[in-house]
Amino acid sequence: VFKTLGLLTMLLGVSMLIPFAVAVLYQDNGLQVLAMSSAVTFVIGFVLFVLCNRAGEQIRSRSAFFLVTAAWFSATVFGALPYYFSDMGLSLVDAWFESASGFTTTGATILTDIEATPKSILLWRSLTQFLGGMGIIVLSLAVLPLLGVGGMDLYRAEVPGPTSDKISARVSETARALWMVYLVFALVQTFVLCAFGMSLFDAVNHALTTMATGGFSTRNASIAAFDSAAIEFVVTFFMFLAGANFILHYRALVKGDFSLVADRELRFYTAITVGSILIVSAALWGVHYDTFGQAIRYGAFQVVSILTTTGYGTADYLLWGAFSQVLLLGLMVIGGSAGSTSGGIKCIRAMLLIKQGYRELYRMIHPKAVVSLKLGDSAVPAGVSSSVFGFFFLYITLVGATTLALTACGVDILTALSGVVSALSNVGPGLGEIGPMLNYSGLPDLAKILLCACMIVGRLEIMTVLVLFTSEYWSS
Amino acid sequence: VFKTLGLLTMLLGVSMLIPFAVAVLYQDNGLQVLAMSSAVTFVIGFVLFVLCNRAGEQIRSRSAFFLVTAAWFSATVFGALPYYFSDMGLSLVDAWFESASGFTTTGATILTDIEATPKSILLWRSLTQFLGGMGIIVLSLAVLPLLGVGGMDLYRAEVPGPTSDKISARVSETARALWMVYLVFALVQTFVLCAFGMSLFDAVNHALTTMATGGFSTRNASIAAFDSAAIEFVVTFFMFLAGANFILHYRALVKGDFSLVADRELRFYTAITVGSILIVSAALWGVHYDTFGQAIRYGAFQVVSILTTTGYGTADYLLWGAFSQVLLLGLMVIGGSAGSTSGGIKCIRAMLLIKQGYRELYRMIHPKAVVSLKLGDSAVPAGVSSSVFGFFFLYITLVGATTLALTACGVDILTALSGVVSALSNVGPGLGEIGPMLNYSGLPDLAKILLCACMIVGRLEIMTVLVLFTSEYWSS
Repeated sequence: VFKTLGLLTMLLGVSMLIPFAVAVLYQDNGLQVLAMSSAVTFVIGFVLFVLCNRAGEQIRSRSAFFLVTAAWFSATVFGALPYYFSDMGLSLVDAWFESASGFTTTGATILTDIEATPKSILLWRSLTQFLGGMGIIVLSLAVLPLLGVGGMDLYRAEVPGPTSDKISARVSETARALWMVYLVFALVQTFVLCAFGMSLFDAVNHALTTMATGGFSTRNASIAAFDSAAIEFVVTFFMFLAGANFILHYRALVKGDFSLVADRELRFYTAITVGSILIVSAALWGVHYDTFGQAIRYGAFQVVSILTTTGYGTADYLLWGAFSQVLLLGLMVIGGSAGSTSGGIKCIRAMLLIKQGYRELYRMIHPKAVVSLKLGDSAVPAGVSSSVFGFFFLYITLVGATTLALTACGVDILTALSGVVSALSNVGPGLGEIGPMLNYSGLPDLAKILLCACMIVGRLEIMTVLVLFTSEYWSS
Repeated sequence: VFKTLGLLTMLLGVSMLIPFAVAVLYQDNGLQVLAMSSAVTFVIGFVLFVLCNRAGEQIRSRSAFFLVTAAWFSATVFGALPYYFSDMGLSLVDAWFESASGFTTTGATILTDIEATPKSILLWRSLTQFLGGMGIIVLSLAVLPLLGVGGMDLYRAEVPGPTSDKISARVSETARALWMVYLVFALVQTFVLCAFGMSLFDAVNHALTTMATGGFSTRNASIAAFDSAAIEFVVTFFMFLAGANFILHYRALVKGDFSLVADRELRFYTAITVGSILIVSAALWGVHYDTFGQAIRYGAFQVVSILTTTGYGTADYLLWGAFSQVLLLGLMVIGGSAGSTSGGIKCIRAMLLIKQGYRELYRMIHPKAVVSLKLGDSAVPAGVSSSVFGFFFLYITLVGATTLALTACGVDILTALSGVVSALSNVGPGLGEIGPMLNYSGLPDLAKILLCACMIVGRLEIMTVLVLFTSEYWSS
C-alpha cells in the first residue's frame, strides 16, 4: 500500500514539471517554487517507495479503502506546496484548501485576485483538477464497483476490456481506455475554444478544468470574463459531456457503439438538464432578463455548470431570487452521471432512490408481493438497493452535521448549508457569502478545514472514507 | 368507509358543544358561531352516515389509507368553521390553516392577537389539538403498524390487550387503554399548573395542547407570558412525557410494569434530550445569558419544546445565533418517540437509520457476511429496514420539493426550508419570518395551503397519504 502511495507521490512530483516548463516559458516567478515543490514531492515519494518496496504484495480489497483515501489526502497536501512556497501570502490552510479544491475537482477558491497569480501557478491549479478527474474516472469505474461502495457494484462488469477482479489489472485497463477519451475531449475543447478567440493559455486551462468538472478559471469573473455566447455554448457542451459516463463515451468513440442512447442514466441526466434549463430560464425570463434568448443563455450555462458540479459562472445567481437558488442547490445534491468526473449523489442513485421510494409505497398496497427493482431490462441486485439508501442517509447526515459544525465556527446558516452541499458534491460556489462571484477567503480557518474534509469525503463517494472510521475496519 | 367518515364528522360536531358550553359560561360572542358550526358539522356527518349505511361492511386494509387521510382532511375543514364564522375577519385559507395546524397538533398560528380572541374559540383551538393527539395515538399504535407504514410494523404486537388483525377491534382496544392515560396526564397537568398560579382556563388550554405536543397557547407570548420558572418546568416535564411512547406510559401506570426503562427508544429519546439541552445551554451560557441557570432554563424548555414538536416558546431563539438554530432544526427532523403525539421521523427511525447506515459500511468490509439488524435483543424484520430508508428518502424529498415550491410563492429560503420542516414534523415555529415570537399570517395564501398539506402529510406519516397518489392504489 505504502509502496503504491510512494509511487503516486513520485508521479505527482513529476507532473509538477509541466507547470515548471510553463514557468520557464513565461519566465514568471513560479520557477523556483515549482522546482522546489516538485523536488520535495518526488523525494518523499521516492523514500516511501523504497522503504516499503516489498515485492509480490497484492493490494487487498480492504486496504484499497485506505490507499484511495491516503492517495487523495496526500495529493492535496503535496499539491498545496506550490501555493505555499509562492509569494502569494497564502496561509497553510488556504494553500491546502486551494489544493484540496483542485484534486477533488471542486473548484472553490480562496484566491481573491486570480489574475494576479503567476501563470505557472494557475496552470498547476488547473492541472490539479485534471489529475483529480483522471483519478476519479478510474476510481469510480474500476475500484469502487469492486469494493461495493454505495451501490456502485451496479457497474461491476461495465469496464471495457477483459474484466478481472484483481484491482491492479482492472485499474490499468480502465486507465488506458478511458484516459484516452478524456485527453481527446480536452484537446478538442482547447482547439475549439481557441477557434472562438480564447488565448491558448486560457483555452488549455479551461479545457483542463471543464473535463474535470472542476471549475477553476484563469479569470476573476470566471467564464463571464469572455462575454461570448459562443464560448459559453462550447463550455456548456463540454461540461455536459464531462458529466456523462465515460464508459458511454468510450463505446461511442472507440467502438462506434451508439446503443448508449438507450442508457437509462443518460436519459435521466439529459431529462434533468433540459427540464431544469427550461424551468430556470422561464423563471428568469421577464424578471431578470428581457429576452428569452438571454434567459436561456445564462440559465442553461448555470444549470449545466451546477448540475455537472463544475462551478463556472457567467451570472451571479444570488441575484436570481430564492426559487432559482433552491433549484440549483437541489441540482448540486443530484450531480452528474456515475463514471463521470462530476460529484453529488449521481443520477443513477437519484433514479434508484426514486424507484425505491415508490417501491416502498407499492409494498404497502401489496404487502405480500415480492418486488424486484429493475433498471431498464436488468434487475438491480438486492444489496445495491439498501446500499444506495445508506449512501443517501450518510450524505444527508453529513450535510446536517457539518452545517451545524460550520455554524459553530460563526458561519451563517445559508452559507454553511450551501457550502457543505457544494463541498460534498464537489461543485464550488454556494449561496450567501460564497456565491458564484465571491470566494471562500473570508471564512474562518476551521470552517475551511471542515470544507476540505467534506470535499475529500464527497469525492471518494463518502463511504470509502467513512468505513475507515469504523472499529471493524481495523479490528481484523 | 364513508359511513365511518360520517360517524367521525358527527362526533366532531358534538365535540364542538364543549367550547359552546364555555361560550355560554363566559357569555362571549363564540356562542352563535359554535352552535352554527356544530350544527353544520353534525348534519353533514349524519347525512353521510345515513347515505352510506350499509351493514356488515368491514374496512379493508387498503381502504384504511383513504379513510385515515379523509378523516384528518375533513376534520381540518369542519374544524375551520368556528374560525370562519366568527367575526375575527379570517379568510377561508387562514381559518383552514389554523384548523389544520390544530388537528395535526402542529401549533403554527396565523392569529396576530391571540388574547383578543373569544375564550370559547380559544378553547376550540386547544381542543382541536387534543382531539388530533387522541387520533394520532390510536393511529400510530393500532392502525399504521398493521398497514406497514414506514417500518411501523415493528409495533405490530405492541398494543395492549388481545391483539387482533381486525382494524376496528384493535382501534377500540387501543383507544380505551391509551386515552385513559392521555386524559389522566392532561388532568394532572391542569391541576399542577393551577397549583403554580395559572388560571383554570389557561391551565386547561395548556394541558390540552401540551399532551397533544401541539403548542397552541392562550397568550401572545406563549409560555413566556407567565414568566415563571416553575410553570416552565412543569410544562417541560409534561412535554417530555407526551413525546414518549404511550404504550410505555400505559404499562407503567396501569400494569405497574417498569421494564420500560430498558426500552431502547426511550433511552435514545432521553439521551438526545439531555445531550441537546447541555449543548444548547453551553452555547447560550455567557453569550446570551449570564448564569448557567438561566441558560439551562431557557435552553431546556426550547429543546424539549422543539424535539417533542410542541412548539411553545419562552425565548426568541432567532436571537440565539446560527448554531442553536441549526441544532433546533435538526431536532425538528428527529422528533419524539413513535406512539407519542409528537411528529418528525421519530426516534425509533432515527436509531434504525443510524444502525442501517453503519451496517452498509460494515457490509463493505465483510461483503459476504449476512448482517441482520438488531434492536436490543430482537431482530428487526427485513422489510422494516428498507421501509425506514424509504420513509427517510420521502421525507427529505418532500422537504426539498416543498421548499422549492414555497420559494416560488415568494418566500425566502430560510423561512421556506424551516417552515416546511416545521410543518412536516408538526412543530409550529420555524426560522426567519416564522420564528417562535412571530406567526404565519404574513405568508402568501398559496404558501399557507402548501404548509397545511405538509402538516397533514407529515402527521399521517407521509406514506399513508402518498400511497393514495400511486396509480396502483386505485387500479385494482
